[in-house]
Amino acid sequence: MAAAARLLPVAAKRLTTTARARRLSTSTSTSPPATAVLYDQHGPPDKVLRVAELPAAEIGERDVCVRMLAAPINPSDLNRVEGVYPVRPPLPAAVAGYEGVGQVHALGGAVDSRLLSPGDWVIPSPPSLGTWQTYIVNPATAWHRVRSDVPPQYVATVTVNPLTALRMLCDFVNLAPGDTLVQNGATSIVGQCVIQLAKLHGLHTINIIRDRPGSQEAKDKLKQLGADHVFTESQLDIKNIKSLLGALPEPALGLNCVGGNAASVILKFLRQGGTMVTYGGMSKKPVTVSTSSFIFKDLSLRGFWLQKWMSSDKAEESRTMIDYLLDLVHEGKLKYEMELTPFSDFHLALDKALGKHGSQPKQVLKF
Amino acid sequence: MAAAARLLPVAAKRLTTTARARRLSTSTSTSPPATAVLYDQHGPPDKVLRVAELPAAEIGERDVCVRMLAAPINPSDLNRVEGVYPVRPPLPAAVAGYEGVGQVHALGGAVDSRLLSPGDWVIPSPPSLGTWQTYIVNPATAWHRVRSDVPPQYVATVTVNPLTALRMLCDFVNLAPGDTLVQNGATSIVGQCVIQLAKLHGLHTINIIRDRPGSQEAKDKLKQLGADHVFTESQLDIKNIKSLLGALPEPALGLNCVGGNAASVILKFLRQGGTMVTYGGMSKKPVTVSTSSFIFKDLSLRGFWLQKWMSSDKAEESRTMIDYLLDLVHEGKLKYEMELTPFSDFHLALDKALGKHGSQPKQVLKF
Repeated sequence: MAAAARLLPVAAKRLTTTARARRLSTSTSTSPPATAVLYDQHGPPDKVLRVAELPAAEIGERDVCVRMLAAPINPSDLNRVEGVYPVRPPLPAAVAGYEGVGQVHALGGAVDSRLLSPGDWVIPSPPSLGTWQTYIVNPATAWHRVRSDVPPQYVATVTVNPLTALRMLCDFVNLAPGDTLVQNGATSIVGQCVIQLAKLHGLHTINIIRDRPGSQEAKDKLKQLGADHVFTESQLDIKNIKSLLGALPEPALGLNCVGGNAASVILKFLRQGGTMVTYGGMSKKPVTVSTSSFIFKDLSLRGFWLQKWMSSDKAEESRTMIDYLLDLVHEGKLKYEMELTPFSDFHLALDKALGKHGSQPKQVLKF
Repeated sequence: MAAAARLLPVAAKRLTTTARARRLSTSTSTSPPATAVLYDQHGPPDKVLRVAELPAAEIGERDVCVRMLAAPINPSDLNRVEGVYPVRPPLPAAVAGYEGVGQVHALGGAVDSRLLSPGDWVIPSPPSLGTWQTYIVNPATAWHRVRSDVPPQYVATVTVNPLTALRMLCDFVNLAPGDTLVQNGATSIVGQCVIQLAKLHGLHTINIIRDRPGSQEAKDKLKQLGADHVFTESQLDIKNIKSLLGALPEPALGLNCVGGNAASVILKFLRQGGTMVTYGGMSKKPVTVSTSSFIFKDLSLRGFWLQKWMSSDKAEESRTMIDYLLDLVHEGKLKYEMELTPFSDFHLALDKALGKHGSQPKQVLKF
């Protein structure tokens, strides 16, 4: 797999009691012991994840020890634990989690204190496996300092969802103010970010959501964020779908995180020569495309995976974009619903993320 | 539809007897009367196509009158008659056919005789509707002079199939000698051209054909043309499809003219980041793609339609490529099976093209 994630060697760096005693004499400092969410084998997250104490870790000359403040439970975190994600950490004793925010706790002796100081807020950038723990030691270059005057849950979640939304608006179709895009799964955090970022750039959005109780409330909420049109899938079960566009131009870009019929209606909305980008498959159904969509309508179908994008030479560019997104959060122009749950209630947060308590906001662990 | 075909106003140009009498006095010359295959409404080709005599047509100052020598019956010709093609000629009295070769019969007074002379072989370029008739009058600029030392059936068919094969090798993926491509429908004329053109450019081909009686003979024939591997679909019903590649690199390009399972096996063969181009749908089944093919395998799915490509600013480029392809035919490097059928047996040729006589070679009408 070309897009290997950076693996934080967190567990490996933790010292056994014996090794610790031996190495402490030469090491300048160590982290505090950490509490972490670990797994030793792949399987159902509520079965295989366990909370455990880890011993102190050595802080090398160029390392920074960070006390974590918050980290979300994203669906892809659960997929990694299940073992259905193409990039897997070494087992046993893998620490779960992929993004989050922390505060600098201690610096190695060779870290330039003009770049990072104790108390600074930092995120792992690119994100890296192992954020569900209270202390992390990693090289200074792996951390990106961010503004600390926004709610920590936004900083903790800025990379996986908002950055995906922003990249997909930039990377596939050259959109100009006045253009239209269409997306399904519009109530997701990526979907909500797409609506708000599109609005900021003068783009119109056609949004598709599931038929379910409360869909009118969901529609109203998305319209308040700036959505031009919001349709449930059943509303799109008509012959002339484009009549629903009204005065809007036909969409040049479609974003699909659902698959199945919800992807087919995106293809129907797209203009001649349009592009659909798949970045998720919530329905677990494949995308089905007619021959004429390719030949006569000249549609292009692509995919987006943030982890691959970030593993290429985009480190600086992604940090600049993250700063931009956090500025928008600070200005009140980018918002989405989350629930901060204390880390001590990890299993409750996990159950909520797994859908055991019905529809719940995105769960963010507060350490 | 952006990609409107050039419509030869052939039938419209034909003079009614009265108009002819009136206009002949001022016109410099007229074509001979023509025999043509016409249709007045869309429907099954063997029901709606009729052979009819057309009156003489005026040859304008800048026109060239061409006596047609040969024209093929392509599947897309039949789709146009059926009305399932997005570009349709005006009815009634539309002349069928889209490509072919003819011989210059007479020139309008303002046509530069250094560019075209009586006896020259010419093709409509870009191809245009209405080639199934014995005489065609069209502006000189609509004709492209070609070499006349190759069998006329190759000149008659060089545009729709061989040019499609060549464009698809050029337009989507930057292939270098040693690279591999995979295609289904490999026994089609496009498929046979892909094999031969790929071989000439140092590219390897993986070829997929239907399971049917005589498939071993078909395999041998494609290997003689230069195919590296030929598999029937049932041979590909295995878990580790890529083990069949042997020492060949994973394909960067896939060409699909079938759809359904035959498209799915192409997607399995493709390398990370590969592209599949759909240019036909012989199985009448759609293309089905998993979410992970887009996200984790980063596949791109595109379409190719020669008629759209030629309607853009590619006139000169396509004529150069046609000359190149006819040079290859002359050198014996590009060949495929066809059957020349006299125009007087049009309905027999049509029935063969419609599959009423089992598997038959491509039918080319000989005028």
